[in-house]
Amino acid sequence: MKVLVLGVDGYLGWPTAMDLANKGHEVWGIDNYLRRDLSRNLDIEPLYSIPNLSERVRIFKDVTNKEITIRIGDLVNWSFISSIFHEFKPDVIIHYAEQPSAPYSMLSREATILTLNNNIQVTANVIFAVRQYSPEAHIIKLGTMGEYGTPNIDIEEGWLEIVHNGRKGKFLFPRQAGSLYHTTKIMDTDLLWFYVRMWDMQVTDLMQGPVYGLLTDESMLDHRLLPIFNYDEVFGTVLNRFLVQAVIGYPLTVYGKGGQTRGYLNIKDTLNCVRLSMENPPGLGKLRIMNQLTETFTVNQLAEMVKAVGDTMGLNVRINHIENPRKEAEEHYYNPKHTGLLELGLEPNFLTNESIHKMLDTIIYYKDNIQKSSIFRNIKW
Amino acid sequence: MKVLVLGVDGYLGWPTAMDLANKGHEVWGIDNYLRRDLSRNLDIEPLYSIPNLSERVRIFKDVTNKEITIRIGDLVNWSFISSIFHEFKPDVIIHYAEQPSAPYSMLSREATILTLNNNIQVTANVIFAVRQYSPEAHIIKLGTMGEYGTPNIDIEEGWLEIVHNGRKGKFLFPRQAGSLYHTTKIMDTDLLWFYVRMWDMQVTDLMQGPVYGLLTDESMLDHRLLPIFNYDEVFGTVLNRFLVQAVIGYPLTVYGKGGQTRGYLNIKDTLNCVRLSMENPPGLGKLRIMNQLTETFTVNQLAEMVKAVGDTMGLNVRINHIENPRKEAEEHYYNPKHTGLLELGLEPNFLTNESIHKMLDTIIYYKDNIQKSSIFRNIKW
Repeated sequence: MKVLVLGVDGYLGWPTAMDLANKGHEVWGIDNYLRRDLSRNLDIEPLYSIPNLSERVRIFKDVTNKEITIRIGDLVNWSFISSIFHEFKPDVIIHYAEQPSAPYSMLSREATILTLNNNIQVTANVIFAVRQYSPEAHIIKLGTMGEYGTPNIDIEEGWLEIVHNGRKGKFLFPRQAGSLYHTTKIMDTDLLWFYVRMWDMQVTDLMQGPVYGLLTDESMLDHRLLPIFNYDEVFGTVLNRFLVQAVIGYPLTVYGKGGQTRGYLNIKDTLNCVRLSMENPPGLGKLRIMNQLTETFTVNQLAEMVKAVGDTMGLNVRINHIENPRKEAEEHYYNPKHTGLLELGLEPNFLTNESIHKMLDTIIYYKDNIQKSSIFRNIKW
Repeated sequence: MKVLVLGVDGYLGWPTAMDLANKGHEVWGIDNYLRRDLSRNLDIEPLYSIPNLSERVRIFKDVTNKEITIRIGDLVNWSFISSIFHEFKPDVIIHYAEQPSAPYSMLSREATILTLNNNIQVTANVIFAVRQYSPEAHIIKLGTMGEYGTPNIDIEEGWLEIVHNGRKGKFLFPRQAGSLYHTTKIMDTDLLWFYVRMWDMQVTDLMQGPVYGLLTDESMLDHRLLPIFNYDEVFGTVLNRFLVQAVIGYPLTVYGKGGQTRGYLNIKDTLNCVRLSMENPPGLGKLRIMNQLTETFTVNQLAEMVKAVGDTMGLNVRINHIENPRKEAEEHYYNPKHTGLLELGLEPNFLTNESIHKMLDTIIYYKDNIQKSSIFRNIKW
C-alpha cells in the first residue's frame, strides 16, 4: 500500500515508517522538524543526537535495502500538503503531525497558540487533502487516552450508548482533558467526526496511552536508527524521566500522591496497532475509535518498578513525592476498555523487569549526555 | 459595569451594546468588520445599508445622549486585544466575535480555515486576556444550540448526569454539530471548559437558537440604528429568508421534508438573556451553560406561519419543497430544556402573527433593495 506518515521525524513516526517500509509498503514521510526546533530552543535536547531524516533514510537503506521517501515542509501550508497528495495519492495516511507535549502547550500563550494552530490546521488540511486527492484513503489518526481524562465511569472505546429519560442515543464518549494539548486532540476528534459524517471519509482514531521503549525490529539494526528519546519535563513521558533519574542518582520525582493512573504500551505494540488498523480498515463513512494501551499503572507503581530493577543493577534508586505542578486528580477511578485492538490480533508486550532493564542499559550507555537541568523545569498549570 | 462587546458590528452585537449603554453601563465595542467584508465579497449585501460603527455611535448619542466607545481591529491579533484589555479592564466580556455562518463555513477550504482560525483563536485570546488583565471578569460567550445537533434524547442545559455500568459521572452534554461553523463552537466550549477548570475563570455559555426580529427599545428610536438584516443563503437565517421570499413573490424554499426542528427566540429576548446572565454571574471556577431559546418550530411550521400572515397582507405566498442541500435529519426528535434563563427572570416574546407582520412591513419598506440572486447560492454539504 501507499502509506503517508505525517510527523515522520517523531518518536513514533520514524519507527512506524521503518516498520511499514520493511514490510514492503511504499512509504513517504513528512516532517518540518518542529519538535527538534522546540527542543533546541528550550535547551532540552534528546538523550542522544538523531541524524536528520535524509541521513536516517540512507542508513535504513544501507541495512535493509528498503526505501523511504522524505519531504520536509509544514503541513499547515496548503500548497505544500496538496502537492504531496497530488503526487503520491496515498491509500493510508498515518497522522502523527502534532505538537505532542502537554507541558509545552501550557508553557506560555505563544506555545498554546502554536499548539492550537498547528494541531487543528494540520488535521483540517489532511481532511481537505484526502477529500480532494484520495477520497477513499484511510486516515489513521493518533489520538490520546488523555481526551477522556479520568472519569468516574468505565471508559469505553470512543462511543457510549446513553439512556436518558427513557430514550436512547449513541454518542462520542464524553471528553474532558487535562491539558491544552489534550484539548486540541478532542478538537481533532470533533473535526474528524464531523467530516466522516459529511463526506463519508474513513478514519481510525487510536486513543493512545503513553508509549515507552526504544527497540523495534528495525531500530535494533543500527543504533543510529533509534527513535528520539526525551527525558525532560516537556517532551519526556513519566517513565522516561524516572529511568533517567534512576541512572543519574536523582530521586524519582512523583507528582503529588502518585495515584494518577494511565494506560501504557510498548513501542512495538504501537507499531502493531497501527499496522493492524491499516490492514483492517473501517470502511467509508466510519469513524472507528480504539483505545491503544495494554495495561494500566499508577505513577507510584512505575516508580516502584524502576526502583526495583534499578536497585538490582546497583543504582540505589530513591523516590521523592513533590508538590504536583499540575491540576489533576491524584487518586481516581480508571477503567478503560481496550479490546478492539486485541480482537484485531494484537499480542501485547507487557512492561517487564527485563524491558525496564534494557531501557536502563541504553540510558547508561548514553549517561554522559544527560543534562540534569533538563529534568525539572517547573512548568505549572 | 464595564462591558466589552466583542463583535459589536454584528446582528446581535450592536443591539446588545445599545441596550447596555442605554441602561447605564460603560460599554466598549470591538469589531473588524469581518462580516461586512465577507458579505461584500460574496455580493450578498444586507437588506439596507448600515452606517459604520463610528456613525452608529454618533446617531445613538444624538438620540439617547449615551456613549459607546468603538475600537476597530482584529481580535486574533494579540497586541490589539491585549491593549484593549490593558486599557479598559472589563468586568464583563460579551463574546460574539466569530464567523457566524454555517453555510459560509462550508463554502470552500479557505472559508473553512478562516472560520476555524478566527473562531478558535479569538476565543483563546479572550481567555488569555482575561487571565492576564481581568482574571475575575465574567465571560459571556454566545454558543449555539447547533452544538448539540438533533440527538434522540432530551437536550439538557449543557450537562448530563450519566450512569454507566453502575457508576455515575457528570459530563458536558454530548455534542455533534451539523456544520463546520457549529463544530468550531463545540471547540470553543472545549477550550473554555478546560480553562475554567485550570484557571478558575467564570464563564456563561449561552446555547442560542436562531434569533429573529429587528426592533429593540433602541433600534426603534432611529431606523439607522436597526441591526443588520441578511436574507441570503449564507448569512440569513431561515425565517429571514422566508420573509423576504414572501415579499418578492418567490416561493418559500423549504429544504427537504421541512421537519427540521430548532429553538428560536426574538432579538429582544437575546438582549434580556445576555443582561440577565450579566446581572447573575455564575461565580469563579464555574462554566454555566443555558439553552437560549423560547419555543421550537419545524421549518414547515415557520413557512406556514409566514404564508398565513403574508396572505392576509395580499402577498399570495407559495411554499416549495426543494432538494435539501445539507446533510441533516429532516425529521427527528427534538426536546431541548430551557428553564435556566426563565428562572433568572426571562419573560419571552413569542413569535406571533403580529411580530411576523412587523418584520414583513420593514422588508416591504426596503423591497426595492432586495437582490433575488442573493437568496439561493446552492451551497451544498
